[in-house]
Amino acid sequence: MSSKSDLAAGRLAPESDGEQPQDGRRVRGDRTKRAILAKAVDIASAEGLEGLSIGRLATELGVSKSGLFAHFGSKQDLQLETVAAASEIFAEVVWQPVADAEPGLVQLSSLMESWLHYLRAEVFRGGCFFANAYHEFDARPGPVRDAIATQKRRWMAAIIHHLRVAEKRGQLTPGTDADQLAFELDAAGSMANSLWQLERDEKAFARGQIAIRSRLNGAATASGRRALAAAGLT
Amino acid sequence: MSSKSDLAAGRLAPESDGEQPQDGRRVRGDRTKRAILAKAVDIASAEGLEGLSIGRLATELGVSKSGLFAHFGSKQDLQLETVAAASEIFAEVVWQPVADAEPGLVQLSSLMESWLHYLRAEVFRGGCFFANAYHEFDARPGPVRDAIATQKRRWMAAIIHHLRVAEKRGQLTPGTDADQLAFELDAAGSMANSLWQLERDEKAFARGQIAIRSRLNGAATASGRRALAAAGLT
Repeated sequence: MSSKSDLAAGRLAPESDGEQPQDGRRVRGDRTKRAILAKAVDIASAEGLEGLSIGRLATELGVSKSGLFAHFGSKQDLQLETVAAASEIFAEVVWQPVADAEPGLVQLSSLMESWLHYLRAEVFRGGCFFANAYHEFDARPGPVRDAIATQKRRWMAAIIHHLRVAEKRGQLTPGTDADQLAFELDAAGSMANSLWQLERDEKAFARGQIAIRSRLNGAATASGRRALAAAGLT
Repeated sequence: MSSKSDLAAGRLAPESDGEQPQDGRRVRGDRTKRAILAKAVDIASAEGLEGLSIGRLATELGVSKSGLFAHFGSKQDLQLETVAAASEIFAEVVWQPVADAEPGLVQLSSLMESWLHYLRAEVFRGGCFFANAYHEFDARPGPVRDAIATQKRRWMAAIIHHLRVAEKRGQLTPGTDADQLAFELDAAGSMANSLWQLERDEKAFARGQIAIRSRLNGAATASGRRALAAAGLT
């Protein structure tokens, strides 16, 4: 397993380790499943969710196909569980580091920087698992596409939530269109990821950061700009 | 063939029709190949270039596999010719309509609007052929990825070229970072396409347009803003 997969597996481990082990076999089973899913996320991020068959995964893990069928009944189950696992990893790597930041523009700006770091670190082998999944499944209706779209909606809703908090704290210029601003923030980070993945363009993340900071500072009140400046986010 | 494929095929037709027919069979062969490629672009835009096998294409066109092998020696040849065909369609649908616009900010802004129209019109069944191809091939090194990356570089270079023209015409605030601005324009249109494809979000293109106009007007001199306003692009 690559170091990136180890990171992904490691990040997922504590949650089950912290539980009271009622049944040793069950806990081992959970750990195994998480390790399998970490590998599944890794493969899918580079080669797509459609390329993620139980056979392909078994080969990569060096286990039998029948052993994997015990964990996942069908390819679609595997795809859905892979989307859920990617979402957990994203939460731990992107959200948790900024959970204690000052609510409002500082927390939002920190979240955006955390996201850029995650994209640059290539926690998933093929870059942002979700960016690839959006494009792969946008023309494939069904439960997998719905699960992916739900993740996207949660991400946009979170950005908008932070903007509302900023507004209540007097950090956002009254009348700012939060949906529009969220769109522009998401666009800048997504394009940084695309350019990095396609071209290994070292400037991609700097450009994303400049665009994001420029949008947030442009929409901030004087008090919002002071908060961003104090946090080194201008 | 769907109406979208007809459009694509129709848009490609004039170029070969305008040539002096030296060999009737050759011209018919070219037309056939173009029609095949229009279908290939359509399939690949929705299902990916990797899903585009000669067998898959033969089934969709209702012809024999051996007939297609006469046109394309390998899957990779087919993929490379499909990228080239998509690029020709893009040029005809996006570039040609703004070829006579006033050089500088007006032409650039018109190009961006033409691009948004193309994305919204879904000239390709699965939305922007290139947006999908970037994500599908970014982790697959080889000639196909290189061809796709070349198209992306040409697109960005064209935006930057228009910005340089605008600068020479005194329409762009001195010191504007053209690479950064090009990144932000591309990001806005690309995100509009993603949201539309994933969510059928009707507001996606309006958001893209607002972002693009806002960036261009924000970077324009008074003379640049007047030119944009006169063309109805503010």
